[in-house]
Amino acid sequence: MHSPAEFPRFVLAPLDRVLTKELQHKIDQKTKPLGALGRLESLALQLGLIQRSLSPQIVNPHVLVCAGDHGAAKAGVSAFPQEVTWQMVENFLAGGAAINVLAKQAGMKLVVADAGVAHEFGARPNLINAKVGAGGTANYLDSAAMNDAECATAMANGAKLAREFVATGCNVLAFGEMGIGNTAAASLITHCITGLPLADCVGRGTGLDDTGLERKRMLLAQALVAWPEKPAAGGATGEDALRVLARFGGFEIAMLAGAMLAAAEARTTLLIDGFIVTSALLVAAQISPAILDYCVYAHCSNEAGHRRQLDWLKGRPLLDLGLRLGEGTGAALALPLLNAACAFMNEMASFESAGVSEKAV
Amino acid sequence: MHSPAEFPRFVLAPLDRVLTKELQHKIDQKTKPLGALGRLESLALQLGLIQRSLSPQIVNPHVLVCAGDHGAAKAGVSAFPQEVTWQMVENFLAGGAAINVLAKQAGMKLVVADAGVAHEFGARPNLINAKVGAGGTANYLDSAAMNDAECATAMANGAKLAREFVATGCNVLAFGEMGIGNTAAASLITHCITGLPLADCVGRGTGLDDTGLERKRMLLAQALVAWPEKPAAGGATGEDALRVLARFGGFEIAMLAGAMLAAAEARTTLLIDGFIVTSALLVAAQISPAILDYCVYAHCSNEAGHRRQLDWLKGRPLLDLGLRLGEGTGAALALPLLNAACAFMNEMASFESAGVSEKAV
Repeated sequence: MHSPAEFPRFVLAPLDRVLTKELQHKIDQKTKPLGALGRLESLALQLGLIQRSLSPQIVNPHVLVCAGDHGAAKAGVSAFPQEVTWQMVENFLAGGAAINVLAKQAGMKLVVADAGVAHEFGARPNLINAKVGAGGTANYLDSAAMNDAECATAMANGAKLAREFVATGCNVLAFGEMGIGNTAAASLITHCITGLPLADCVGRGTGLDDTGLERKRMLLAQALVAWPEKPAAGGATGEDALRVLARFGGFEIAMLAGAMLAAAEARTTLLIDGFIVTSALLVAAQISPAILDYCVYAHCSNEAGHRRQLDWLKGRPLLDLGLRLGEGTGAALALPLLNAACAFMNEMASFESAGVSEKAV
Repeated sequence: MHSPAEFPRFVLAPLDRVLTKELQHKIDQKTKPLGALGRLESLALQLGLIQRSLSPQIVNPHVLVCAGDHGAAKAGVSAFPQEVTWQMVENFLAGGAAINVLAKQAGMKLVVADAGVAHEFGARPNLINAKVGAGGTANYLDSAAMNDAECATAMANGAKLAREFVATGCNVLAFGEMGIGNTAAASLITHCITGLPLADCVGRGTGLDDTGLERKRMLLAQALVAWPEKPAAGGATGEDALRVLARFGGFEIAMLAGAMLAAAEARTTLLIDGFIVTSALLVAAQISPAILDYCVYAHCSNEAGHRRQLDWLKGRPLLDLGLRLGEGTGAALALPLLNAACAFMNEMASFESAGVSEKAV
């Protein structure tokens, strides 16, 4: 179907674990019972390994929000009309969306990219123009959402941006998205890659009622039928995952997958948000499984399929707050925990330095 | 047993819910699907009700860490020797403990109080001298940990401090503790107030092995037998809870209970940490059940009894990170979520102000 040569290539190294013992020793010598900081301790270990440092630090964290429109949105897979995609991009640019507020509070730089929104924004100082298709993706109920060249371009756009962030010193990159209809695309991708039953991968998105959910499930089952060349459920392994990505879209998911791969290639910590972002990761992990070593799972969202994705990836989320907003909001809320993990490593006293007695029995 | 007149009195108003509808309307008009910010939304509602404001804010948040020693510690209820209490207080004063690092990162003012540590610190600029007993509490295996006057004094000390914080404008008060042996006291208090089986209330504390845990369970069962006048398990309701508090201690738990009651009386948000802090809340809630309206449960700790306390209180923790350190560390880690709840209320655009279309189906 596609020539692999069209797609950008990434060379990811599995996590170098040479510092494991030294990091664990440093953690264990802090003035606290062994293991008493729970998940902060495993997080500190992971950040130390990724950064190859006994003193991990969070430097210039970014959240990249990619927006795109979906041809299938007009078929009725979402509770909101398609124009909400561009309206929300305007809201991002005006500073009024949840991710603006939460990224600012977390001290993260927010970068918004138009991966292919069906709207002409014109030249805007704080919007990255990475538009692949001017009218959004095609409707996967009829044909492929993207052709291979479009999918490859969206991935390359994401990779280029991620490398630019890394060049500024950024060592934590969080991912978010906006795109009416994109939980539907994420459901199809998740089904094809993980092999989980389609019904388990489909949720209410922005708030479908029971009838809407039933209709979404039916449409997505049709979307699978409309693609005779599809891999078997769970059979979209390796580069077959790119075929799935191109078939179901969206541009923003492809852009995110490319950004993730480039960021992990540069040994950046990836802060993974919700269901749609995780669908991009599922694709990326098929291209290069080592990417998972660099992932921190910010939260488990309330979108039904997200917990199943995390279970399948054996990913443990830091937060579980019933969020289902996307935009990278869960990632922004989790960043303070990454800061805390670094702070305890760098600022807490050891038993020896503080003159505190160790465990007696 | 005690004259109620000895104990400080508190007058707590149940939460005034007059703003509920207006707050919910403001939350629902933000540019996000209904309910999409999950727990942040219920938190924003609670903070708005407590503060009687549509624009809740976190002002001058404090974490009060009370330290005390326990006579029973020498009987072997803890994995660490008793002198770790004063050594850790010195660590707090030197800035090297986990709570120093995490409170600083969260922008909270840390206040450390000596509620009755078995050590003479001398006059120290950053330590509140609220010492009730110079040698720690008595051993509840033999007699009451405190007499009524001591218990009342510790509570009054906590109340006085909390009122001082409130006078500085502080509207969120978090609680932490340090005291070798205090998970044992908390287990006994929890058993007497909730009626949960003692074995379910006893955990590994700072890290007992199986043998140590078995010994702790046996000693605590003896502690109950050694108190013939005890209320039935689950029968320590109302002011009987003060009898339980005096019997099992410690000074720091009594001080925390007094601080909580005074803070809630002043309509301050209480940020509840782990197992020991929650045992103080169990006592306080028997004195004045309205206190629970003012509580935010920061996290569920890994100490076995904490989840059971939270279930009993119907309290939903914000974080679940496997922490078991105490000191108020879970509370400090949760503060950014309170800030986030206020930030979205105050800074996010509404559908109308942003020109975003609302839900279509």
